[in-house]
Amino acid sequence: MTQSDSKLSENSIIHTFFNPKSVVVIGASKNPMKGGQHIVRNLTQNNFKGKIYLVNPNAEGELFGLKFEKTVLDINDNVDIAIFYVGNTLIPGILRECIQKGIKGAIIESSGFEEVGKHGLELKDEIVKITENFSKIRIIGPNCLGISKIDGDSDLKGDERGGLFTGFAYFSNYKRGNIAIITQSGTLNGGYLGHQMEAYPDTGYRYSCAIGNKMDLDETYFLEYMLEDPSVNVVAMYLESFKDPRKFIELCRRARNKKKTIILAKGGLTSQGQKATQSHTGSLAENSQLIDAIIKQSGVIKASGFHDLFQFARTFSMMYETEKILPEKGNVCTITGSGGFGTVLADLTKLNGLNFPNLGDIAFNALEEIYPTWMPPNRFALLDIWPAIEKGLSKKLTGGDIIKSCYDIVVNEPNIEGIFINMFCAKGGMWSIDKIIEDSMATSKPIFVNLIGDPREIKRVSRKLNKNKIPNFLNLEEMVKNFSILFQESKNRSKEY
Amino acid sequence: MTQSDSKLSENSIIHTFFNPKSVVVIGASKNPMKGGQHIVRNLTQNNFKGKIYLVNPNAEGELFGLKFEKTVLDINDNVDIAIFYVGNTLIPGILRECIQKGIKGAIIESSGFEEVGKHGLELKDEIVKITENFSKIRIIGPNCLGISKIDGDSDLKGDERGGLFTGFAYFSNYKRGNIAIITQSGTLNGGYLGHQMEAYPDTGYRYSCAIGNKMDLDETYFLEYMLEDPSVNVVAMYLESFKDPRKFIELCRRARNKKKTIILAKGGLTSQGQKATQSHTGSLAENSQLIDAIIKQSGVIKASGFHDLFQFARTFSMMYETEKILPEKGNVCTITGSGGFGTVLADLTKLNGLNFPNLGDIAFNALEEIYPTWMPPNRFALLDIWPAIEKGLSKKLTGGDIIKSCYDIVVNEPNIEGIFINMFCAKGGMWSIDKIIEDSMATSKPIFVNLIGDPREIKRVSRKLNKNKIPNFLNLEEMVKNFSILFQESKNRSKEY
Repeated sequence: MTQSDSKLSENSIIHTFFNPKSVVVIGASKNPMKGGQHIVRNLTQNNFKGKIYLVNPNAEGELFGLKFEKTVLDINDNVDIAIFYVGNTLIPGILRECIQKGIKGAIIESSGFEEVGKHGLELKDEIVKITENFSKIRIIGPNCLGISKIDGDSDLKGDERGGLFTGFAYFSNYKRGNIAIITQSGTLNGGYLGHQMEAYPDTGYRYSCAIGNKMDLDETYFLEYMLEDPSVNVVAMYLESFKDPRKFIELCRRARNKKKTIILAKGGLTSQGQKATQSHTGSLAENSQLIDAIIKQSGVIKASGFHDLFQFARTFSMMYETEKILPEKGNVCTITGSGGFGTVLADLTKLNGLNFPNLGDIAFNALEEIYPTWMPPNRFALLDIWPAIEKGLSKKLTGGDIIKSCYDIVVNEPNIEGIFINMFCAKGGMWSIDKIIEDSMATSKPIFVNLIGDPREIKRVSRKLNKNKIPNFLNLEEMVKNFSILFQESKNRSKEY
Repeated sequence: MTQSDSKLSENSIIHTFFNPKSVVVIGASKNPMKGGQHIVRNLTQNNFKGKIYLVNPNAEGELFGLKFEKTVLDINDNVDIAIFYVGNTLIPGILRECIQKGIKGAIIESSGFEEVGKHGLELKDEIVKITENFSKIRIIGPNCLGISKIDGDSDLKGDERGGLFTGFAYFSNYKRGNIAIITQSGTLNGGYLGHQMEAYPDTGYRYSCAIGNKMDLDETYFLEYMLEDPSVNVVAMYLESFKDPRKFIELCRRARNKKKTIILAKGGLTSQGQKATQSHTGSLAENSQLIDAIIKQSGVIKASGFHDLFQFARTFSMMYETEKILPEKGNVCTITGSGGFGTVLADLTKLNGLNFPNLGDIAFNALEEIYPTWMPPNRFALLDIWPAIEKGLSKKLTGGDIIKSCYDIVVNEPNIEGIFINMFCAKGGMWSIDKIIEDSMATSKPIFVNLIGDPREIKRVSRKLNKNKIPNFLNLEEMVKNFSILFQESKNRSKEY
């Protein structure tokens, strides 16, 4: 990160949103079922370091030891950011007070604006007027689930733990990592993100930004900020519209120069999807050829839905964390004990633009020693190890010995840029999970593992692989797709702009 | 099933393979690590009703209470089927004795034939000569994992339990169901099938046939048999080559007249895959345009790999078991609490050839009553129920009440042929799993469920849905793909041939 980058980042309004010295929750509630309470809980329980003020003219007394004020004007202190969780019609009036108070930014989580038609659009017009076209106060949302910044894992003690959590979905289990989320779906960075964190507890996130209807601040502001923050490697986005396509494309290209990866799930690709976006975030219909052109020119990695979005983000996150080199030619090798799986993998790799290259003489000759003469190794990089294991048994070698020998030969083959392992999981089986972890740590080539076998054993192995940042899958299709995006990213980076 | 069908089936050699009065295991072994012992264990422990003989000239004494014979000629009884698990070079000689003994069929599980090149091809030629081009004895395999027939669930008691298991992969947990597997990959009907059975214990199978190199009996013999057996609804196939494309296409068409579904994963779709099939099952390269034409003309449901193959089979299996009507127009409805998920689903359905149709006036008017005026329902069949729930809360209605009202309205809409539910799983959440099960039982429209939420709760809900034969998924992409194959099947059936 250069000096100027760093400055740009610190001067930006987004920086203020992520690093407020004080916040006020407008609509803080004593009712534990209400979003207005969840927001306060999110801030206090997750160790937000700044000051927290509560505004609710109908509430008396305290919440989590914090006093309620009637209006923001009653607060006897400077306030950087206001978080709104009140009925839509109340917002213009309160925004006026926020401006009077000198509050720099508002996160409006309430809905009922562009997405509800005429009445909502009138409210928007009123806000545009009050804020003098957002020059008096900047706005995130409305109709969003807030923003989060994770500074320290939830299981750390003391000051290191927590960060800033402003949404009305409560978070208590999280890890800091290199992924940032920018989304127009609140579910995505609410419940769905929370449960992704439970299902994959070793995947860490740094930022999560719900941008809702993006009445003012749009995806490009957040994306630009993420490009400048060195703690972020991967940006996972869900957008229902492109507010500024030119800027979006330019930022995506800049991301690649900075060796960051952007993954995009786009809602509203079809006419049917666009009808849905309109009632969801009030997005206007976009020409689908235009959408395709933007996606193509931006060179983002496209995800077909939320499952892919998170899976792709995990895969890239692991690649950055383990400093893997992305494949430049798409050349992979497979080690499998099943000919059928090997065959399907040979097709899937080819259909996804990857190759099993021919092995060099050194590697091939070494494999010939290990394989029986009645079933020599393939000349190309598909190792069905079963015949080699059968030969090994007669020499008192274990399956594990054979796997090790084969692996050592192919990992050193210069033409091979990544390895697919089709691991059969069984208690006391021939595959050693520790060996795979050790191997993966020792090479800059990505190693991807497909797990078949005993469901309980698969679970155990998968956890260990996740902990060690080795991508692992339960089906070949998904493994190949996730490897092929590494190749896609590498090809995009080599393009001249 | 007509009388003539039944006769054809009972007269066929495949019928003899699945219903032998006596079998001999050639290569039965006292070593518990050897395949030759697993086969005997599979037969004896799984309650095979016929007689079992063991042949191994080097073994003394007994195995599981059965005596070893030196050769098949030493057996003092008629034998229907011989199962081979001995070195490839020994096979021609023993086959000669089998013919002399009057044995009708051989299952050759040993490998080392077409797939190993010259020497293997010579062995094949020898077998062709000895068997007088398979007129003296019919052969399944070689290089295969045997065949199985499940008559009764493994947890039943007494005579009802078990069936015929002839492979060297041991099975102990299984359910009888309506799926038949025909495969050229042994892993598929060995370890992979076994573990699918553990992961999805409510999915039942009727037959599993490994056909290996299909030196004699090929996929069409087995497929024809499955078409005639009324206990089979779904045939899941993995093929590396088409032995008789014309017959295959004709059988697939016949399947549709019989309202049976065939799902095919094809290995060797690409040049790279074909190099793999050659060393796996000795399959010769096929022209990929020809492959595409066969798949298209046959109208099979194509699976891109093993994961899809089993998932698609489960989906169709459930549809048959619950007597659902396949969609004729591809019209679906979605009920979701998340606008983002709804939007992505709207795109995915469209991209997969499905529609959210416009709702009729009766349904729309009824929904209007439930939705707030500030956020009326969509005119098309995408129900984002959140606004309706907000309105309901003010009338003391629960989320569950609102879901029920919405569901009841759309399930009765004549234009809707299936329903996608995006269920958020949380303890004490608003979605009632029992209600979904009850609803699904009460309609002939397929109901598919996507599960998001707490991973433990998802697991519990998924188990219950599986038990009640309701397809459920962890991602939208997969849910839509699995629904779209129902529509594909229905369109294929309506074609004239």
